[in-house]
Amino acid sequence: MAGTAESSWQPRYARRADNMKASEIRELLKLLGKPGIISFAGGIPDPVLFPSEFAATAYSEALSAPAAASHPMQYSVSEGYAPLTGWIAQHMTDLGVPATTDNIIITSGSQQALDFLGKLLLTPDDTALVTTPTYLGALQAFSAYEPRYDTIDPGKGNRTPQSYAKTAAAAASGAQAKFAYIVPDFANPTGETLTLDERKDLLKLAREIDVPILEDSAYRALRFEGEDLPSLQALDVKDKGSLNASSVIYLGTFSKTIAPGLRVGWICASETLIERLVLVKQASDLNSPVLNQMVMHRIVEDRHIELIETARQHYRTKRDAMLAALETHMPDGVSWTKPKGGLFVWLTLPLGMNAAELLQRAIAEANVAFVPGAAFYHDGSGANTLRLSYSLPTPAVIEDGIHQLANLIK
Amino acid sequence: MAGTAESSWQPRYARRADNMKASEIRELLKLLGKPGIISFAGGIPDPVLFPSEFAATAYSEALSAPAAASHPMQYSVSEGYAPLTGWIAQHMTDLGVPATTDNIIITSGSQQALDFLGKLLLTPDDTALVTTPTYLGALQAFSAYEPRYDTIDPGKGNRTPQSYAKTAAAAASGAQAKFAYIVPDFANPTGETLTLDERKDLLKLAREIDVPILEDSAYRALRFEGEDLPSLQALDVKDKGSLNASSVIYLGTFSKTIAPGLRVGWICASETLIERLVLVKQASDLNSPVLNQMVMHRIVEDRHIELIETARQHYRTKRDAMLAALETHMPDGVSWTKPKGGLFVWLTLPLGMNAAELLQRAIAEANVAFVPGAAFYHDGSGANTLRLSYSLPTPAVIEDGIHQLANLIK
Repeated sequence: MAGTAESSWQPRYARRADNMKASEIRELLKLLGKPGIISFAGGIPDPVLFPSEFAATAYSEALSAPAAASHPMQYSVSEGYAPLTGWIAQHMTDLGVPATTDNIIITSGSQQALDFLGKLLLTPDDTALVTTPTYLGALQAFSAYEPRYDTIDPGKGNRTPQSYAKTAAAAASGAQAKFAYIVPDFANPTGETLTLDERKDLLKLAREIDVPILEDSAYRALRFEGEDLPSLQALDVKDKGSLNASSVIYLGTFSKTIAPGLRVGWICASETLIERLVLVKQASDLNSPVLNQMVMHRIVEDRHIELIETARQHYRTKRDAMLAALETHMPDGVSWTKPKGGLFVWLTLPLGMNAAELLQRAIAEANVAFVPGAAFYHDGSGANTLRLSYSLPTPAVIEDGIHQLANLIK
Repeated sequence: MAGTAESSWQPRYARRADNMKASEIRELLKLLGKPGIISFAGGIPDPVLFPSEFAATAYSEALSAPAAASHPMQYSVSEGYAPLTGWIAQHMTDLGVPATTDNIIITSGSQQALDFLGKLLLTPDDTALVTTPTYLGALQAFSAYEPRYDTIDPGKGNRTPQSYAKTAAAAASGAQAKFAYIVPDFANPTGETLTLDERKDLLKLAREIDVPILEDSAYRALRFEGEDLPSLQALDVKDKGSLNASSVIYLGTFSKTIAPGLRVGWICASETLIERLVLVKQASDLNSPVLNQMVMHRIVEDRHIELIETARQHYRTKRDAMLAALETHMPDGVSWTKPKGGLFVWLTLPLGMNAAELLQRAIAEANVAFVPGAAFYHDGSGANTLRLSYSLPTPAVIEDGIHQLANLIK
């Protein structure tokens, strides 16, 4: 083996490496450092909300007088720090999903949960059902396991159960539709939320086509107005009688409500599935840092409600600023979603306009960044769509950035 | 989908799930909490060595006056915290492998590095070459990607290149031998170290059969006596002229020298390969916690040499105690390795004795735990072998535990 070129390594990669491409989001993260850039890219929480001082104290306390048998700098159990999984079990119970610690595993953010569920469930040629558009990071995680994709779009007129069965069966022998991946609340990337009826219809369809649902709940807590809707898992548990009988797998995270950098998320599901996921975790990275879990436990125990309320108010003001600016500046023919929570507005340009081309002009001429929508489509469509995040800029900067972006579209 | 049983989930799992079994090491970790147990199980560093106070200060400092643009509780880049990858690049350069930050990616311990390399390189039915015995965690990581295994045993009379080619070709069409996984220094589980000649012979064989080497260097720094030997990567870089031309992939970790709980390891390899691994990291968990990387950077910058020297002295004393106790108490017919570093002694019982059965008696009758050796063999052999770690007990407890264990063998 000689030479430095990609050509010498290329023949050695697994087949799945063909599916693992550079992400536009990753490239865009690099723009955050560009001076003066107005970034509507990235689902990046505003760091002014992070409880840095509280965390500093919690780290110090955890590291002073540590117990030798469960030292915060030692290896730890793969399922997660028991007081934290206990807190999460109670949290899920409060959300209408009676759970115990046996129903919870800690993951390194929801991204690792998506990876683990792909790893546990997907054999090449199995089908993953996703919305159009869907969360880009989920497509990246799943694609490593070489699925086919098919579309499920709650509330937008779905196909018959027979049609789904037919599509799955058309793949390789033995391949199945393995799950439907859904972000029901303030979705990434659209900001949209399923109604109660849409949730019930989705559960009905999932039962008819016999697939579990992966419910990605990353933005659920960030509701600005209206009443919380029951999670898909809560509805399913109510119907089935218990979480252990439910086929909904719930992905939770503290990344959007507390801070993403500690990398603490969780999966809540049937004990049977959690036992398997513990083996996946063990083979993948042994355990998430227990010290970070201890600190996260201290934060949520003392400040969970307060931090969520502050985050809601903070992002509501920014959402209002973005919707007002869009209303004021965008020309006819441009439409956008009106999210009731979360971090994103989804914008549709006139047909024929290309958001990737617009991004190049926006960066060069207006110093404004966003994510072109095509990356969120498993089939590469959506060229005239884009995602705007209002999480980082101030309201005044949002007004300015949208104004400049609108000028490029006119 | 109804019912709570494994039977309802079983048909939904990926084919690879058959390869992901409960680990004996994980079960044994639970024994660490049993009162009075003398544990020779687990490669668990002694927490008395962890720099807890220094870490507490480093966490506080990182969290006070954080920069908004690179907040320690924010998302971060997948390749790792630049000052830490810079430190590691210099460290590798000092070890005879001239490297830049483009040659380094941070992983959540070496376990994640093993997982990522399996993910990037192994298509089902490809062959992974491993020693007998080899590190159990590597088998767990690789097996998720459904390889076949074949044996490579440096210094123990290897087969011809033709024989390896034949074995790999006997698998499915297109399947290849993808890598050889080697722990050259104070190996887990045997404690043995490859001589310089064995290293050279291994590199020669790997070139002849055209496979990269995964060099797991977890215990390298923990040498108690003798001179450091060049790493396989340093030898290969010397032959090939540059790291970018090398086909050795080096896995480093701070878990055994500083502390495992921060979950900070790294891969050092050709830039080409690192670029691919960054995509794997991004799809798998986005990034390792940057706060932990900042703290690890502070620790190694200020205290790396001192911490390693302390750890060497600490474990040398325990190694001496274990070898002396084995010499004193073990009956004829039992043999063991004499490690010059690391955390492990590998013990071979008389043929016909079963280490798993011995473990049951040892726990019940002597309150002593170890890891039966069969778990470290890809082919399930090694029933009469076992791994002893001297890392946790004091010298007096080691003497007592080995004495009691010997009494069960007599």
